[in-house]
Amino acid sequence: MNKVDLNSDMGESFGRYKLGNDEEIMRHISSANIACGFHAGDPHILKYTIKLAKESGTAVGAHPGLPDLLGFGRRAMDTTPEELYDYFVYQIGAVQAFCTVMGVPMQHVKGHGIVEMMSTERPELAEAIASAVKDVNPDLLYMTIAGTTLYETCKKTGLRVAGEAYGDRAYNDDGTLVSRKLPGSVIADPEVVAARIIQLLDTGTVTTYKGGTIKIAAQSICMHGDTPGAANLIRIVREKLDERGISVVPVGTLV
Amino acid sequence: MNKVDLNSDMGESFGRYKLGNDEEIMRHISSANIACGFHAGDPHILKYTIKLAKESGTAVGAHPGLPDLLGFGRRAMDTTPEELYDYFVYQIGAVQAFCTVMGVPMQHVKGHGIVEMMSTERPELAEAIASAVKDVNPDLLYMTIAGTTLYETCKKTGLRVAGEAYGDRAYNDDGTLVSRKLPGSVIADPEVVAARIIQLLDTGTVTTYKGGTIKIAAQSICMHGDTPGAANLIRIVREKLDERGISVVPVGTLV
Amino acid sequence: MNKVDLNSDMGESFGRYKLGNDEEIMRHISSANIACGFHAGDPHILKYTIKLAKESGTAVGAHPGLPDLLGFGRRAMDTTPEELYDYFVYQIGAVQAFCTVMGVPMQHVKGHGIVEMMSTERPELAEAIASAVKDVNPDLLYMTIAGTTLYETCKKTGLRVAGEAYGDRAYNDDGTLVSRKLPGSVIADPEVVAARIIQLLDTGTVTTYKGGTIKIAAQSICMHGDTPGAANLIRIVREKLDERGISVVPVGTLV
Amino acid sequence: MNKVDLNSDMGESFGRYKLGNDEEIMRHISSANIACGFHAGDPHILKYTIKLAKESGTAVGAHPGLPDLLGFGRRAMDTTPEELYDYFVYQIGAVQAFCTVMGVPMQHVKGHGIVEMMSTERPELAEAIASAVKDVNPDLLYMTIAGTTLYETCKKTGLRVAGEAYGDRAYNDDGTLVSRKLPGSVIADPEVVAARIIQLLDTGTVTTYKGGTIKIAAQSICMHGDTPGAANLIRIVREKLDERGISVVPVGTLV
Repeated sequence: MNKVDLNSDMGESFGRYKLGNDEEIMRHISSANIACGFHAGDPHILKYTIKLAKESGTAVGAHPGLPDLLGFGRRAMDTTPEELYDYFVYQIGAVQAFCTVMGVPMQHVKGHGIVEMMSTERPELAEAIASAVKDVNPDLLYMTIAGTTLYETCKKTGLRVAGEAYGDRAYNDDGTLVSRKLPGSVIADPEVVAARIIQLLDTGTVTTYKGGTIKIAAQSICMHGDTPGAANLIRIVREKLDERGISVVPVGTLV
Repeated sequence: MNKVDLNSDMGESFGRYKLGNDEEIMRHISSANIACGFHAGDPHILKYTIKLAKESGTAVGAHPGLPDLLGFGRRAMDTTPEELYDYFVYQIGAVQAFCTVMGVPMQHVKGHGIVEMMSTERPELAEAIASAVKDVNPDLLYMTIAGTTLYETCKKTGLRVAGEAYGDRAYNDDGTLVSRKLPGSVIADPEVVAARIIQLLDTGTVTTYKGGTIKIAAQSICMHGDTPGAANLIRIVREKLDERGISVVPVGTLV
Repeated sequence: MNKVDLNSDMGESFGRYKLGNDEEIMRHISSANIACGFHAGDPHILKYTIKLAKESGTAVGAHPGLPDLLGFGRRAMDTTPEELYDYFVYQIGAVQAFCTVMGVPMQHVKGHGIVEMMSTERPELAEAIASAVKDVNPDLLYMTIAGTTLYETCKKTGLRVAGEAYGDRAYNDDGTLVSRKLPGSVIADPEVVAARIIQLLDTGTVTTYKGGTIKIAAQSICMHGDTPGAANLIRIVREKLDERGISVVPVGTLV
Repeated sequence: MNKVDLNSDMGESFGRYKLGNDEEIMRHISSANIACGFHAGDPHILKYTIKLAKESGTAVGAHPGLPDLLGFGRRAMDTTPEELYDYFVYQIGAVQAFCTVMGVPMQHVKGHGIVEMMSTERPELAEAIASAVKDVNPDLLYMTIAGTTLYETCKKTGLRVAGEAYGDRAYNDDGTLVSRKLPGSVIADPEVVAARIIQLLDTGTVTTYKGGTIKIAAQSICMHGDTPGAANLIRIVREKLDERGISVVPVGTLV
């Protein structure tokens, strides 16, 4: 495979609060997961971020989360499937309106981290997410980790689905991510991250934390945008991919 | 004129808080202005209210407001035109998504009271509102009091515009509403309200607080849904109109 | 025992949204658990409710909850102990300020339902709650169901603790409440509720759902204020207690 | 005068959003105006900021604002005096509770910028603020610009009041601040700012934008903490004051 998508969470600022370096990172990625105003983001940030994406030719996606700005949407909440369905519809609709206003299409939806984790434990939440996306717009692509409950549910629902992998996170032998509490779970060296992505593209595999080899089906690589040095890491990874002749393209062209 | 629209603010509940008798009122009106989650309403209420509207054949509109749930969006806020534009885009988008999900078209937009009043004092806010509506969907109709700055601005922007009048509020000779602080400013007697509406339809005039006669260009009558006895008043007005052979129809068919 | 406290959740309105009949219920209870602005209530409601309590001689308590107005604080959230500690300190402080302003003492704290349930599964949350209350004011009494983790933790921390029982809920043989999903789990007949309270006071026992008898150590009876007919039920219960010569007094005088 | 207070707005972060460099600035100032969770700040930030203040011996004050996190409390809102009173009581109470928990006294209250400006136009708002502070705790000192409506109102109410001046803002001849839109309205050079403060302390005067000289009665100098280079500017100013033998002390010791 000589094409890959790089995606990153964007638009996470709020009001006067600035988070991340979207201006820089947007230029190196091909798909932007844009916060929708529940766990992060607000109407102005939303519009501004879509404008940034448009200027750099980055594909736009909605990144819906839980209504918990105080916790940045990272705390599991005991929501019902209907609540989650409604939260997704609402947030996707808001992003869609700004896409319309800015004259860009919406490519994909990717749920915020904790929502996706909740959907692994409660399949009815995966159903709710998949239905919400399909009901609002069946042409939207859903992006999530390949092989998860949510991934399979979206496929069954009839949505196009893109699998994603993490370039800067170590994997366990069962394909899950190594806990952030362990040393070496997060990879900060751009050279190593680039090498891992290239291995993934060349061989479809990842070398695990314990030294094993596992298969990962991914068309998109998630790049964290909110860690120190994130912009620099993404820039270097992008350069390495360019050097190898690997095109970085929106995931919608790959699935 | 033997046709008129009755519009009412709907979907103003929030979470566990119930406001108004939407189930009853929805059956008697032809256009619903649905709160969008900023000054009132939430994603679930939004979906539920659109479902109610669909069941009764009532046309759906978005009713965007200020981000001030604590004040029910009734307190003037010193927002910039760009902020207001973004608030409208965001809220209209959210309502649109639920319309899509429920399989009903969105007919109109009507700004929450204080927003419309703010736009009278600051024409740049009227511009922001008109642009937001047009940019999201130029087929949307804007409903507001005929002759206001906002009304004229929407017209100039190229939007279809519907004028509305108040059946249960007394008018001053200059066409403004009599202050709620004065006795008799709010009319509670359904018979009187119905008579005023019928006069308006027959003659295009309203008898003012001081006994004068003024012309009002209105295709829609705003019925307050949140006062005690509102459901009863609306039901009786509807009956009186039916008796007179006046069809109550969505305003989109009248302009 | 010829004395008992009746407690009820009060001050759950928000902005323009009215919930419950505090004006009526406040007159029949002896301890008010007042929402603090996170899951319900707002600064104005808070002041108004303390004023109501003062007028009827009802003792005031803070009723802290999760920061989830949309879900009325009823959805379990994965908060850390430190977060919960801080939420309690913040909310108790806000209520204390209004008590000062109104010239009434604060008697107690009682956590909102889901918080107390969360503390049963995660003892570190019970520690956080107990510490927060003690650190803000060691003279505050904590009210909760006798025998729970939270009850015991508050006792160990050195707080005065009051046990409460439910007059209108059926009990299982192990002292837990019968699920609301089962018929007969909620008792609506005031006569029955009053009889159960009187049995509890006379014998320290409750007759369970299955007909057994269990001991309950309670100085306060929780009366739900948000169900239809709640005000009427509480009024009648109060009358029955009066008839039996049972004094209804603030729990602070009983422990 | 060889003593002066330096005050700065602190604790304006929210959830995952970091604003300002409180860790550094707190060491150079003598009074901290701490956001209370309405326009900025949250319970955790509040506790953390008071801890920082305690560690550096900085006096703690509450910095209440409007309930508008999205607008950082900077947008005028049409609140009633009663609403503002209640917002102040609520927020001061929350800060007081964390002061208690951390074992530090609360020295003062200073309203957020727009609230103070609103109170200039509407004296009834100044009355509301003064009453709220006095009713919660008459020993609290109120800090604001000398000579304003709010300043005089607090004095009349019987509160101790401290006057503040701006070291980094140019003044008009009438004592008001030069609009930020004009060049030179904000002074970024630490040497100049220090010189202006020293002039103020030595002579009680400020050289105005147009070159005149006006008297300013100030015991405290407000240092902006949220501009680029703010920490550096405050550090240098502090050094210059130290060099001149001017003690930087909490304003409570000066009035």
